[in-house]
Amino acid sequence: MANTFGKIFSVTTFGESHGEGIGAVIDGCPAGLTFDEAFIQSQLDRRKPGQSKITTRRNEPDQLQILSGVFEGKSTGAPIALFIPNEDARSKDYEHLAETYRPSHADFTYEKKYGVRDHRGGGRSSARETAARVAAGAVAMLLLKNVGVSIHAYVSRVGDIEAPQYTQLDLAQTDSNIVRCPHAPTAEKMIALIDKVRLERDTIGGVITGVIRNVLVGLGEPVFDKLHADLGKAMLSINAVKGFEYGSGFAGSRLRGSAHNDEFVNEGGTIRTRTNRSGGIQGGISNGEDIYFNVAFKPVATIMKDQESVDRKGDPVTVEGKGRHDPCVVPRAVPIVEAMAALVMADFLLRSRVDRI
Amino acid sequence: MANTFGKIFSVTTFGESHGEGIGAVIDGCPAGLTFDEAFIQSQLDRRKPGQSKITTRRNEPDQLQILSGVFEGKSTGAPIALFIPNEDARSKDYEHLAETYRPSHADFTYEKKYGVRDHRGGGRSSARETAARVAAGAVAMLLLKNVGVSIHAYVSRVGDIEAPQYTQLDLAQTDSNIVRCPHAPTAEKMIALIDKVRLERDTIGGVITGVIRNVLVGLGEPVFDKLHADLGKAMLSINAVKGFEYGSGFAGSRLRGSAHNDEFVNEGGTIRTRTNRSGGIQGGISNGEDIYFNVAFKPVATIMKDQESVDRKGDPVTVEGKGRHDPCVVPRAVPIVEAMAALVMADFLLRSRVDRI
Amino acid sequence: MANTFGKIFSVTTFGESHGEGIGAVIDGCPAGLTFDEAFIQSQLDRRKPGQSKITTRRNEPDQLQILSGVFEGKSTGAPIALFIPNEDARSKDYEHLAETYRPSHADFTYEKKYGVRDHRGGGRSSARETAARVAAGAVAMLLLKNVGVSIHAYVSRVGDIEAPQYTQLDLAQTDSNIVRCPHAPTAEKMIALIDKVRLERDTIGGVITGVIRNVLVGLGEPVFDKLHADLGKAMLSINAVKGFEYGSGFAGSRLRGSAHNDEFVNEGGTIRTRTNRSGGIQGGISNGEDIYFNVAFKPVATIMKDQESVDRKGDPVTVEGKGRHDPCVVPRAVPIVEAMAALVMADFLLRSRVDRI
Amino acid sequence: MANTFGKIFSVTTFGESHGEGIGAVIDGCPAGLTFDEAFIQSQLDRRKPGQSKITTRRNEPDQLQILSGVFEGKSTGAPIALFIPNEDARSKDYEHLAETYRPSHADFTYEKKYGVRDHRGGGRSSARETAARVAAGAVAMLLLKNVGVSIHAYVSRVGDIEAPQYTQLDLAQTDSNIVRCPHAPTAEKMIALIDKVRLERDTIGGVITGVIRNVLVGLGEPVFDKLHADLGKAMLSINAVKGFEYGSGFAGSRLRGSAHNDEFVNEGGTIRTRTNRSGGIQGGISNGEDIYFNVAFKPVATIMKDQESVDRKGDPVTVEGKGRHDPCVVPRAVPIVEAMAALVMADFLLRSRVDRI
Repeated sequence: MANTFGKIFSVTTFGESHGEGIGAVIDGCPAGLTFDEAFIQSQLDRRKPGQSKITTRRNEPDQLQILSGVFEGKSTGAPIALFIPNEDARSKDYEHLAETYRPSHADFTYEKKYGVRDHRGGGRSSARETAARVAAGAVAMLLLKNVGVSIHAYVSRVGDIEAPQYTQLDLAQTDSNIVRCPHAPTAEKMIALIDKVRLERDTIGGVITGVIRNVLVGLGEPVFDKLHADLGKAMLSINAVKGFEYGSGFAGSRLRGSAHNDEFVNEGGTIRTRTNRSGGIQGGISNGEDIYFNVAFKPVATIMKDQESVDRKGDPVTVEGKGRHDPCVVPRAVPIVEAMAALVMADFLLRSRVDRI
Repeated sequence: MANTFGKIFSVTTFGESHGEGIGAVIDGCPAGLTFDEAFIQSQLDRRKPGQSKITTRRNEPDQLQILSGVFEGKSTGAPIALFIPNEDARSKDYEHLAETYRPSHADFTYEKKYGVRDHRGGGRSSARETAARVAAGAVAMLLLKNVGVSIHAYVSRVGDIEAPQYTQLDLAQTDSNIVRCPHAPTAEKMIALIDKVRLERDTIGGVITGVIRNVLVGLGEPVFDKLHADLGKAMLSINAVKGFEYGSGFAGSRLRGSAHNDEFVNEGGTIRTRTNRSGGIQGGISNGEDIYFNVAFKPVATIMKDQESVDRKGDPVTVEGKGRHDPCVVPRAVPIVEAMAALVMADFLLRSRVDRI
Repeated sequence: MANTFGKIFSVTTFGESHGEGIGAVIDGCPAGLTFDEAFIQSQLDRRKPGQSKITTRRNEPDQLQILSGVFEGKSTGAPIALFIPNEDARSKDYEHLAETYRPSHADFTYEKKYGVRDHRGGGRSSARETAARVAAGAVAMLLLKNVGVSIHAYVSRVGDIEAPQYTQLDLAQTDSNIVRCPHAPTAEKMIALIDKVRLERDTIGGVITGVIRNVLVGLGEPVFDKLHADLGKAMLSINAVKGFEYGSGFAGSRLRGSAHNDEFVNEGGTIRTRTNRSGGIQGGISNGEDIYFNVAFKPVATIMKDQESVDRKGDPVTVEGKGRHDPCVVPRAVPIVEAMAALVMADFLLRSRVDRI
Repeated sequence: MANTFGKIFSVTTFGESHGEGIGAVIDGCPAGLTFDEAFIQSQLDRRKPGQSKITTRRNEPDQLQILSGVFEGKSTGAPIALFIPNEDARSKDYEHLAETYRPSHADFTYEKKYGVRDHRGGGRSSARETAARVAAGAVAMLLLKNVGVSIHAYVSRVGDIEAPQYTQLDLAQTDSNIVRCPHAPTAEKMIALIDKVRLERDTIGGVITGVIRNVLVGLGEPVFDKLHADLGKAMLSINAVKGFEYGSGFAGSRLRGSAHNDEFVNEGGTIRTRTNRSGGIQGGISNGEDIYFNVAFKPVATIMKDQESVDRKGDPVTVEGKGRHDPCVVPRAVPIVEAMAALVMADFLLRSRVDRI
């Protein structure tokens, strides 16, 4: 089942960019969860297009519908079906692309894999699918809030413009600007860069940093389903992601063991680590320290410039630069990173209930 | 099932560092595969300890036993059970650690998660578990060879010493030296550095690069099980891995779309991309170009120096630096990276058989 | 995932009797399947309430909506979401039951399991959930038709009134009467009995026989997922089912081996069995002969008589006999049995694609 | 994964009748379970061949080996690998069958499915595979004992000789005779019949009844994974099983609702049902009453008489009646039925831990 994520808190998404809408079915949400519909909608609002000058002008209200699984404000243990109708799909904008393989898009691979392809708005390969993830992730967040776990993400780099380390930031400020970087001076530069790139009809990549706090000790599984392995898969499954690192990451691979190891200390009765190069995870299992990780996004493939390519027959074509797209995906991807992190953490939270006799 | 990897070509591993042995059960290997036992053993030999001066002195023959699923030299469609007995376990070396939480090891998290812990040699958290992955991965490689897919990995960086890009290397040279870097001058420097670090009773991290060639178009699933997402999870599930990137990776997130996109071209009737920043994967699905990726390994946590830590009661202890360990994990991790890549590719190869009517 | 059925052709259902509607998401339907929407609707029409004097008077149009996964009349390989809105729910009819545990219903067990319960129309435990199965099963039938497999079910017993063996019947006549028994004289008696029971404000059980023809040799898995084991689970998962037998069934357990064995014969080059007590399945795998099985349904628990029971507090209550219900479930369950059989067969059809190298 | 059973308490079996041995890997057993190895061995002893004059003379010690997952007498949360070496395999007895399709065996279907076949002793299709189930089931029983659940099975019918209802029997007497029927007068008749059939070189079928007591309320899942649906699949997956019914079963389908319903009563503060035609399960979920069910076994296909059949080429052959086989499978199948029931119950016990917030 390629469209399902999670083993106990299990989410199946469906829907295409220009079909009826986008949906998710959550199977495995425990009964009795107070269902804060406004919170779920607020997360969808953070992801939806048309929020600012640096995002696409497609205008989707992304109004959540709850089709099942909730009764008198609480989850019942039955599957929770969420649906977000499509409203502002302009399939005509894509008619000229029915035969074309756009550079660095999924047109070619979908068609070779399936023999058929819904070319309207990218079909299933469109990032619009992530609306379902955000809705389901918001339900996961409700579950995590009950045990105090909090999930944060923010834009830490756009092109070469980089924010300070997360430990020096106030993550509550993330949504105080349109680029979702909690460091105001950096945010300004990022916005200016994205705007510049947009005017040049181009796009640019960036990095989102995720931080998970107040994590219970013991989440994650030791071998294949290491906590960071599932977080990594979750992030890499988001459109346009090219890399994932956690804790000391790629930089840590340059260090010596004596400089990298996190010594344990006793802090007033709680066993903690003096440093946190482990990124809150040891042997694939959370140790209670902050979990932090970086997710690299490539520049959006749709640019407003003409590009050379080929069509279905292999004949050369020029792909015209038009349509409504984001010049930089990271500001809108922040709630997606948070949602995927929440799905992973909620799943492991439930899985940990069967660890012991 | 936290100890199972793969949806169709599905591998379950078992065993601890100092128990009876390490094993794997492969469920889902198609019938009729010619079973080259010598090849599987040769992969185990590449991973086994005691190969050279830069690896641990633990001496394990790692002799493969095939317990089921093979008849008259061919797979029968029944589950294939592989077993590798432990021989040279010295559990006494670990007795003093029964109560201690070693820095940056999994002692603390295992104990908090499960309440009990097999401290002998790290138990299930030991990298010895990866012997089972290498054996199973070798079976996956036999399957992939039938369709021409080839899998390569090599050491591309140790500390700050870095090899040239993979496109400039002859990957057939990887095993020509003990550090498994196919670029001889770089290999020499790497070996010297590891030897120096070893004499200083320390450890060091590094990077392994994986390359997959002759990939069929259409492998991978579009949403959660993107080909690179599963490769990423596979790599991140290997002990000591801190990061994964594919194609243009983290560096690609600094570029503009116009500089990053891979234009399609018609090369004598075959549709290819002019460049390959996509890393052979578009929309989560292989496009037939080389798949390449980097895997970052932290320095081995066991160093031959004394370290401060705490014991089970939270009392301070000094962890003495002794035992038999690798000063740098990457040379022996090369066959593990290849094995995990093979498991992913074999699974998607079989999954692709149900793509179309 | 308790609401998902099938490993490759995988169906997740959602929805409650008196919620927004009932739905199914099919993940794993191969691309390129011609999507005959009218056929799917026709199967829903066969299951829907209000068809005749011997079924409930609840009046649901059961109008199918396809939310995703189909483009220009063909499946695309993306998940197919199907939705059937509820129209004629009368939740007020159930208000008096919010505190009551109806005899032989799921009220008590749901409430003890989940702590909360959607009492309206039985919530998720209502047989209305099977509308989603019928819709998904119809898609499976489209897939099976491509390879010639045909699936039949009919009412073979109501109370003690029993039809002749399936081999003596023309299964094309099943829908020629309202009780769905292809043997007209027996059907008449069955209808008379159900009508009598209905007027007596009671209900009655029965048996449905399933027959699968033109089955490919080699479907089913040898150990846990034997073809008949999955068929059995599929049938036992239908509301009100109490038993399943295939081939010679319970009667076969009275025989001797010499009287029970099916000898192989060569019929013009095709290897067949002379008799078919095996029911078309040997060692869990189809052998190409007819698969046939019986499914026993208990009498519907909702009767139009007063019954003694207790409420949530354990106090005695009288459950009044009112509402709209079927006096006998088997006529409307025929398409459900067919749908579940189709889901099993479609899944094994796809699974068999990875049997061999 | 066709060789895996259970979603959380998950068992994968491997091994063939005449290979190295038979094994099981249990993934998902909680840590901290006291591991009573003698109990597991005792269950294997109940299943092993050569116990009495009415079972096969194959002589297997079935000595359990624990390869992993247990440390200092307790489960550690790591996968538990169990292995039972084959000792008394006489593959030569099967050489003459390499080309033959035995009547009502799996020879034909295996060969058509896989293209290759391990004909020695039936290979993977041999009931010897169930040794692994019995070992794993014994671990499940250890888990169930902790919460008081007890699992019983006994022979309730051989041919036409039938024991009284389970409520009239002392199930502690099951193992007091070689046929495993707790009703001594009936047991005597059964033994005499089996012995007669054996001397006539024939075989005979029968029924095993299972009873599960002290069941917690709330086990089982409401839709596809109904408790009785998974029990049914578990039983139908045992070699030679042709039918399954629970509670009132097939007989219940003859009744009226007014005669079938189980009214709730308050017994000293506990809500119970006055009768138990529901068989302890309502809406797929346990209600705390006894769970009881019947499992029908066909007569063993291997008889000591000559039979007509065909070989691989379709040419007629005579299958000679020789080898070592049971004249009636049900006495030795009692521990297998118990083991499969235990696997289902242990899995649902763990699954129920995530029912509520």
